[in-house]
Amino acid sequence: MAHGEGGRLTRQLIAQHIVPAFQNSAVSSLGDAALLPLLNGPVAFTTDSFVVSPLFFPGGDIGKLAVFGTVNDLVVSGARPRWLSLSLIIEEGFPIATLTRIIQSIAEAAKTADVEIVTGDTKVVPRGAADQIFINTAGVGELIAPVPPGPSALQSSDEIVVTGPIGRHGVAILASRENFGIDPVPRSDCAPLRGLVDVLRQGGCPIRAMRDATRGGVAAVLHEWAEQSRLTMSITEATIPVTDEVRGVCELLGLDPLHIANEGTMVVVVPAGWGASAVSLLRTLEAGVRAAVIGSVVPQRTASVIVHRVLGTDQPLDDPAGSPLPRIC
Amino acid sequence: MAHGEGGRLTRQLIAQHIVPAFQNSAVSSLGDAALLPLLNGPVAFTTDSFVVSPLFFPGGDIGKLAVFGTVNDLVVSGARPRWLSLSLIIEEGFPIATLTRIIQSIAEAAKTADVEIVTGDTKVVPRGAADQIFINTAGVGELIAPVPPGPSALQSSDEIVVTGPIGRHGVAILASRENFGIDPVPRSDCAPLRGLVDVLRQGGCPIRAMRDATRGGVAAVLHEWAEQSRLTMSITEATIPVTDEVRGVCELLGLDPLHIANEGTMVVVVPAGWGASAVSLLRTLEAGVRAAVIGSVVPQRTASVIVHRVLGTDQPLDDPAGSPLPRIC
Repeated sequence: MAHGEGGRLTRQLIAQHIVPAFQNSAVSSLGDAALLPLLNGPVAFTTDSFVVSPLFFPGGDIGKLAVFGTVNDLVVSGARPRWLSLSLIIEEGFPIATLTRIIQSIAEAAKTADVEIVTGDTKVVPRGAADQIFINTAGVGELIAPVPPGPSALQSSDEIVVTGPIGRHGVAILASRENFGIDPVPRSDCAPLRGLVDVLRQGGCPIRAMRDATRGGVAAVLHEWAEQSRLTMSITEATIPVTDEVRGVCELLGLDPLHIANEGTMVVVVPAGWGASAVSLLRTLEAGVRAAVIGSVVPQRTASVIVHRVLGTDQPLDDPAGSPLPRIC
Repeated sequence: MAHGEGGRLTRQLIAQHIVPAFQNSAVSSLGDAALLPLLNGPVAFTTDSFVVSPLFFPGGDIGKLAVFGTVNDLVVSGARPRWLSLSLIIEEGFPIATLTRIIQSIAEAAKTADVEIVTGDTKVVPRGAADQIFINTAGVGELIAPVPPGPSALQSSDEIVVTGPIGRHGVAILASRENFGIDPVPRSDCAPLRGLVDVLRQGGCPIRAMRDATRGGVAAVLHEWAEQSRLTMSITEATIPVTDEVRGVCELLGLDPLHIANEGTMVVVVPAGWGASAVSLLRTLEAGVRAAVIGSVVPQRTASVIVHRVLGTDQPLDDPAGSPLPRIC
């Protein structure tokens, strides 16, 4: 507890176990706020708290998730991520060795994503008042023109692309909680999306809207876009990339991969005729080799999202009240 | 639980109970990040998580604290606060009515402090995985010249000023947990510091360093400054403003008000000869009527912080490992 009370032990915890992982002038000064240079464009600002359980899972951990999650929110908003804040809520008795492992993972992820952790906060709560550790990151980026206009700009006949196989993060978390005996073990897709966005931009592909399909999966993104655009999203099940592991777990449990969370896979809408180019560009990257056009935007129908199922029927896609998986991020 | 799983109920919770309190174009768009204009200066960026218990206390609540705490970190760093993020970790079963009360308090505090809540996140964790609600705010501001050079610029003979009676927040939290039967009930000093900083700037008072004396109290600030400046902070007990309520509780429990947290009171160091002017300027505001010079910076001695006690002795000020009060902010 004393590590979180603002006295000598708090300063030691921060100086010995947290700050050394993040070498930059802003964080080393340990003032009340990071003092940073001018930004080169309008600002993008976002925040996310991470409460994932378990803390470590195949393909990632809470630290990596906390960095890439926030970085990806900036990237899909059309920004270049610059700075992250890092705030920890730690349960009394949480092992310093585990904290160190998470901090190292955060530092590595920040390096990979080319962002700096510049400011932070550490709280410790009594045993039982939190479950191990919760992490909040907020991110500041600068917008890069042209900024995608977003879901309200969607037009009928626009094409819907996903950048990789869907549902990998949620299934990895689920599989690491239960032992399904699936081989290979399902791995999270947890990764930064910047490379995928850059390759589209550099290839001159216009982007109407993009979104990382986290909680609620691809389904939640499509439902939100349908709501905001007043159009219907129509997708074809057979075209949606899904790994064998994800398919296996979903069939076992009666889940639809469309509802399962991703942490390094996004949905992109491009104007009619641009779908194939977008996919070719994405496929030049390892992270995009299974990119695919999965459907298109159509005039508004009764159902917000329609799936043309493998069996040949058109079905409205369920917009579930919650999700089958709590604490996935 | 379903309110936190990223599906329809999450969107409803946010749309019905959170967003309406924060009317601005950035938050209304509900994208992955807030898209904001250019800043007018270099950036200040900070973050704080709030785990205070109880959630409501005389003089404030967790929402007010979450806004003013982050705003004050920006203000004492020399910035004009512009935008806040708001991230909630909510325990399953937490009453919507209490959430609404907190959200209202956050909205009012943001208005008072002239900042906009522009982006947010909501997570729900199962019963027992968190204690009621934790709130993280991150803040972005623009630096206003001249930015105070900070503790490394302190010089011998500089004067140390506090802007009001110390220890009020910590004692209010303590008193709201235990029933001491003290009348009037001790109230937190929870408030934005911007007015106090502005009055010093406008009065032309040079500022070497300023800091809101939160966790660890005035003692923690002085110890940090002594460490960073390699000078000794020498203060005189008789000059330190303390309310009767704070004095009463501290005497009862054997606590030193110097170690108790504040949430709207700061320590400011000004060059030699400027102490009286700083106090006169601060006293023009209601929040600063009890401002006082409490000591000065002196050449480095064995003790980092020395208190000239009321009884006439000079004593080193304790730098406690922790604090007597967990979860005060």
